[in-house]
Amino acid sequence: MKYPPVLPEETFQTLISEIKDWQITHGSQLKLVKTDDEHTVLSQPVGCTLFPTLYPRDLFQETLSLQVIYNKLYTAVAEDEEWLYQTLKDMIDVDPLTNRLWTIYQEVKREGFLQDLTLGIFRSDYMLHTDGHDQSPKPQLKQVEFNTITCAGGVHGNRISDMHRHLNLIGMYNTSSDSTSGSASTIQLNASSLPKNTTLQTLASGLEAAHHAYGPATSRIPGRQTCILFIVQPKNFNIADERPIEYALESNSIPCFRVTFGHEVLSHTSLTPSGELIYRLPERSISMEVSVLYFRAGFEVHEYDDTGHMARFQLEKSRAIKCPSILSHLTTFKKVQQALALPNALDRFLAPEEAAMLSRTFAPQYPLDKSKLGLHARELATNPQTAKSHILKPSLEGGGHNFYGKDIVAFLKATPKEVWHQYILMEKITPPLVKNFLMSPRGLYEGPVISELGVFGVCLWKRMYVKDNKRAAVIVKEFDPCWSFKTKDASVNEMSVVKGYGCFDSPALVDSEVFLSLLERF
Amino acid sequence: MKYPPVLPEETFQTLISEIKDWQITHGSQLKLVKTDDEHTVLSQPVGCTLFPTLYPRDLFQETLSLQVIYNKLYTAVAEDEEWLYQTLKDMIDVDPLTNRLWTIYQEVKREGFLQDLTLGIFRSDYMLHTDGHDQSPKPQLKQVEFNTITCAGGVHGNRISDMHRHLNLIGMYNTSSDSTSGSASTIQLNASSLPKNTTLQTLASGLEAAHHAYGPATSRIPGRQTCILFIVQPKNFNIADERPIEYALESNSIPCFRVTFGHEVLSHTSLTPSGELIYRLPERSISMEVSVLYFRAGFEVHEYDDTGHMARFQLEKSRAIKCPSILSHLTTFKKVQQALALPNALDRFLAPEEAAMLSRTFAPQYPLDKSKLGLHARELATNPQTAKSHILKPSLEGGGHNFYGKDIVAFLKATPKEVWHQYILMEKITPPLVKNFLMSPRGLYEGPVISELGVFGVCLWKRMYVKDNKRAAVIVKEFDPCWSFKTKDASVNEMSVVKGYGCFDSPALVDSEVFLSLLERF
Repeated sequence: MKYPPVLPEETFQTLISEIKDWQITHGSQLKLVKTDDEHTVLSQPVGCTLFPTLYPRDLFQETLSLQVIYNKLYTAVAEDEEWLYQTLKDMIDVDPLTNRLWTIYQEVKREGFLQDLTLGIFRSDYMLHTDGHDQSPKPQLKQVEFNTITCAGGVHGNRISDMHRHLNLIGMYNTSSDSTSGSASTIQLNASSLPKNTTLQTLASGLEAAHHAYGPATSRIPGRQTCILFIVQPKNFNIADERPIEYALESNSIPCFRVTFGHEVLSHTSLTPSGELIYRLPERSISMEVSVLYFRAGFEVHEYDDTGHMARFQLEKSRAIKCPSILSHLTTFKKVQQALALPNALDRFLAPEEAAMLSRTFAPQYPLDKSKLGLHARELATNPQTAKSHILKPSLEGGGHNFYGKDIVAFLKATPKEVWHQYILMEKITPPLVKNFLMSPRGLYEGPVISELGVFGVCLWKRMYVKDNKRAAVIVKEFDPCWSFKTKDASVNEMSVVKGYGCFDSPALVDSEVFLSLLERF
Repeated sequence: MKYPPVLPEETFQTLISEIKDWQITHGSQLKLVKTDDEHTVLSQPVGCTLFPTLYPRDLFQETLSLQVIYNKLYTAVAEDEEWLYQTLKDMIDVDPLTNRLWTIYQEVKREGFLQDLTLGIFRSDYMLHTDGHDQSPKPQLKQVEFNTITCAGGVHGNRISDMHRHLNLIGMYNTSSDSTSGSASTIQLNASSLPKNTTLQTLASGLEAAHHAYGPATSRIPGRQTCILFIVQPKNFNIADERPIEYALESNSIPCFRVTFGHEVLSHTSLTPSGELIYRLPERSISMEVSVLYFRAGFEVHEYDDTGHMARFQLEKSRAIKCPSILSHLTTFKKVQQALALPNALDRFLAPEEAAMLSRTFAPQYPLDKSKLGLHARELATNPQTAKSHILKPSLEGGGHNFYGKDIVAFLKATPKEVWHQYILMEKITPPLVKNFLMSPRGLYEGPVISELGVFGVCLWKRMYVKDNKRAAVIVKEFDPCWSFKTKDASVNEMSVVKGYGCFDSPALVDSEVFLSLLERF
């Protein structure tokens, strides 16, 4: 068996041409912001794979089941102020972003919460892992990270998944006649190999559900409409991953507006005495009451100057439903992921069987602090022999800014020990290698690739008060998990789509045995 | 009353940003073919208007009614070999394209016709005309040209119409508070001002109807599928106007393939002894029988080298349904339009009341030959005083290569009289000026504009033999007329989208009185 199919040259060129045209005509594009003139702007196709990448069907299904438990876990964590404080308190003291967010949270808490609903749009990222010491390297799922703010890639992933299904439908992947007769036959894809991607619609449905849960405007202007605000970054190259969510909502008659994080929030929104957030359309007498705040910005420390701080404070203390709230935002930090991976940590939040299912997906990871585990981690990180099988990640954020292998040793040598605890050390996942072609502004690549499956969890939860004024989360609306899928050159560490390394993709589901048999070829 | 609305600066910038993002995410793009690398390609938004342009509602409706008669007329002309020959015979002798097409037609006729169905995708273009001599210049419809091959702009027009409707829905055109109080109020658009555009779906439905009318494959390979071939030009910047039609058909499980006019037709298709056209997927053992040939190429003389000639011949003599057939293609020439505008010419094809309806839309136009009318036209064209109110057009083609005003005099001075009959002279239409903003790669323009409404007629007709071996056309399937709408700077002669002059647009329908009242402001 082999995969992907070997296409004759002319067919291969047709495939590339089909892909470029499909991407241009379906908004599978990145905006070249430096060309953004008043009258025109250039764009180019987002990086993608030429073929869907092989993936074990059972593990794909398992990630969807896991997401339901992850939703339960992260909504519970987001309402567990005490646990979060204990987990993050060292960082609150020294890390500016954690400090800002915690401060804002405390200020809002002092004034009193006006909204007990929160919308979660989460994304749990997995790689496949094969244990090199094992004779039969059946791949396992390992979680790379869990994101709770600005989970991107949903729309791009949806588009490329649609594209692969389209290309399969029109027979581009069909090699009825293997030109190299006598060689191994090619795996044929069918409709069940390529699961339908519903991420765009699910994200929109989540926001819509929150919008309706907010209810009619309560501020005192008769007939005032409600609207959703997208809190966005300025000069965004990635509008094609955001705008379609707006359009889906607008086509259901839900007004949506984009407001840039920071100054624009303060100049275009205000709070009523009773806490409704009012959005004023620039230079017009129309104003609307904000039902939902969807953050696609506000996750980077540089955004939190005094204006950014005031903006987030104003939004957080309003009656609008946040996606995410500040506490939910804080759960995105790697420190939380690492703390949840500590022995028995999950018992606080989940039933034992649920905890067992999740913990199987945790890669070994350690704090880099002065705890016993932390001291062990420091040894692993400073020894070139052990460092090479690890990744050093900032405790904070979603992706990027990681150090790999021997760079860890060099970096720590140059870094004062006092700030080491702002990093966590994670054992490197060793994914099985499969073959594919990547096409991106960087060029065309053929060879071994590594994929990352991002599973979206979308749920609306309610804060409930239990005994001792403690809080709990009750999920009131939950959507079927959905996904995006990215793939990169196996020799590159970063999955960055912006830099052209990470390419959007979709999984070609096969039985485990088939998957394993193809791995043997590397 | 005024229009378009005067938007405050920030709102205006928001509108521009909304438009660019919408275009990127909806494939409202032109490919920059010179950047077309194997791994990536740049594109930019097709020119469009910021606002829909005012248009009289009654005239818009009238064009749709006229199209039904135009379908009847042009299907009848396309089956009237004798009339076409009489009309075109002078050109057949001297014009290479007419000569090639007529030769191919004769060759095919000699071998015998294998298909009595033809698909028409026509586009009748209109401008509004106000008679300068009239005190009350109520605008009238004047036909600019009638196209029967490669009628482009349907998808782009559909997209921009959708965009204007979207922008109106989200309130971008709503100026509830006129900032300049006391001034005339702005026309407010509503859903009925912006008719829904269904052109993309209609074009796909026309091709689908032809595909089904062709029936199952008749060539002798069991289970052979049928498919539609798009005959296209190489290195096409305008794929966004073609590909969506393919996608619409493919999503209805109709296989579609693109074949470049000329060499690729000969290398990838062949005829069975019984005349079925077989398309072989490059380098694969799959072949399909072609049900419909949709030409988006083959309309320019340079395409008809010997290979192009052979390609068109092979396609034309096949059993596939052509869109268009060669005779139908020939009806696109300006010479036919001019001949149909001669007194009583329509009586051959239409009932008197139908002929009256159409002829009201004809601008005065003349041959430039040695007939009595032609000699009159030569006087008009060579006198600078009268030339300035005329346009000189090649007798052949769709758009472009026209001469205006004093350029006519200079051009004819430099051109041997023997070839003057290859041109027709048309009285210049003097459209009423309205105001709008154009945004294209050329820049942002604000000022008086001129619009052209292109009405698509889609119909499938059958050739019938009547007495004396004469033929007649019977329409067996006809779709509701649909449209595209383009607008240009009033000071520019050309409507070329490629050059950035012509911008896609949609009509904002208003009552005639309102339209007239706004004209008075210029």
